[in-house]
Amino acid sequence: MITSQPAIVLLSGGLDSVTCAAIARESGYAVHALTVDYNQRHRVELEAARRAAAMYAVRHIVLPLDLRAFGGSALTDEIAVPKGDGAVDSGVIPPTYVPARNTVFLSVALAWAEAIDARDIFIGVNALDYSGYPDCRPAFIAAFEALAATATKAGSEGERFKVHTPLIDLDKAGIAREATRLGVDIAGTWTCYDPATAADGTPLHCGRCDACRLRHKGFEEAGLPDPTTYAAP
Amino acid sequence: MITSQPAIVLLSGGLDSVTCAAIARESGYAVHALTVDYNQRHRVELEAARRAAAMYAVRHIVLPLDLRAFGGSALTDEIAVPKGDGAVDSGVIPPTYVPARNTVFLSVALAWAEAIDARDIFIGVNALDYSGYPDCRPAFIAAFEALAATATKAGSEGERFKVHTPLIDLDKAGIAREATRLGVDIAGTWTCYDPATAADGTPLHCGRCDACRLRHKGFEEAGLPDPTTYAAP
Repeated sequence: MITSQPAIVLLSGGLDSVTCAAIARESGYAVHALTVDYNQRHRVELEAARRAAAMYAVRHIVLPLDLRAFGGSALTDEIAVPKGDGAVDSGVIPPTYVPARNTVFLSVALAWAEAIDARDIFIGVNALDYSGYPDCRPAFIAAFEALAATATKAGSEGERFKVHTPLIDLDKAGIAREATRLGVDIAGTWTCYDPATAADGTPLHCGRCDACRLRHKGFEEAGLPDPTTYAAP
Repeated sequence: MITSQPAIVLLSGGLDSVTCAAIARESGYAVHALTVDYNQRHRVELEAARRAAAMYAVRHIVLPLDLRAFGGSALTDEIAVPKGDGAVDSGVIPPTYVPARNTVFLSVALAWAEAIDARDIFIGVNALDYSGYPDCRPAFIAAFEALAATATKAGSEGERFKVHTPLIDLDKAGIAREATRLGVDIAGTWTCYDPATAADGTPLHCGRCDACRLRHKGFEEAGLPDPTTYAAP
């Protein structure tokens, strides 16, 4: 499909959301990238979002929305980010879950979408190789689309908002392959929840949090080179 | 019901949300008041929210969330606020509609609720004497509750979030009566979308926007004194 319809793309700066932006652009949408600065611990991802927006977006808004005011997560509060060698997907929602984060993200995306008459929103969630977050599942996306239909002026006039989740059925190996196919600047994306610092001050992926381990496993399983420099192997 | 359960109350500083906070407090909840500073044109309502929070809340967060970044409304953009004598409820959604505003508000309320293990959220919407906004209707509230059940860790563990709308079936006269019964500092609430300024610099309700006209009609129909000073009768 080649179209110049606007679409809102939630862009965190991670591998998934940047790949999602590349897919939206490839599909012909005029990408309006929305990055929420939620005062996350891993603020280096905001720079990764800016790099990706320069590649794929016609417009980029970085919206301050301080979820740290509420706390309740290892990503926004003084709670430790889990590290180690156990299985990432153990059926337990980990402390890196941020309460209602994707609900908040999709809501502000919907606000921008309706303001510019866009009907399409992209979010890079995936329900396969993920950390068990409830707001990455297809049922959540369906519930949000139902909400958007009743919540908006456009919806009450019969218009429908579509939440695109092009990565939802991919595992991390599939995302690594898709990113490679699309020529994504993989080294320029940021995944780590709890960055380390190199001797020269450069932030490094820690290599041990769930997000780093899923990222590396993806490239390994896809048989593709992982260009990421990790502080710990 | 007397309980010391925490509840999040969305508190704009208007007559409706302040009355809603008084009801939550009367019901025994520990009111956690949440005011979203969305960079609205009528910023004087933030002061009204602070006054009301001092009366009813154990905690008050004023969260900056700049919906003006998206525009698309007379309340956040350079679009005129309608004034005049026509019927307020004419079946057309007016330009004071802010795209997805209540979706955004309930989403951040949900984030705070889950972070502090609250299951109750209060919002002062009413579907009778209102301006036709889609996100004030019972169907919207039901869709949000369904979303909250799939969106959250608590929901995935079988917990349910309840969105309380104690004003939803009241007309403005009913709200004026309820505010009076509860001893709400009515003169301290702020309703006007487009404040005028008195000679001494004090902000005044304009008396002509939809919100002012609904407010005044409510007191008139209830046969109660309206303590508001309007710039225009």
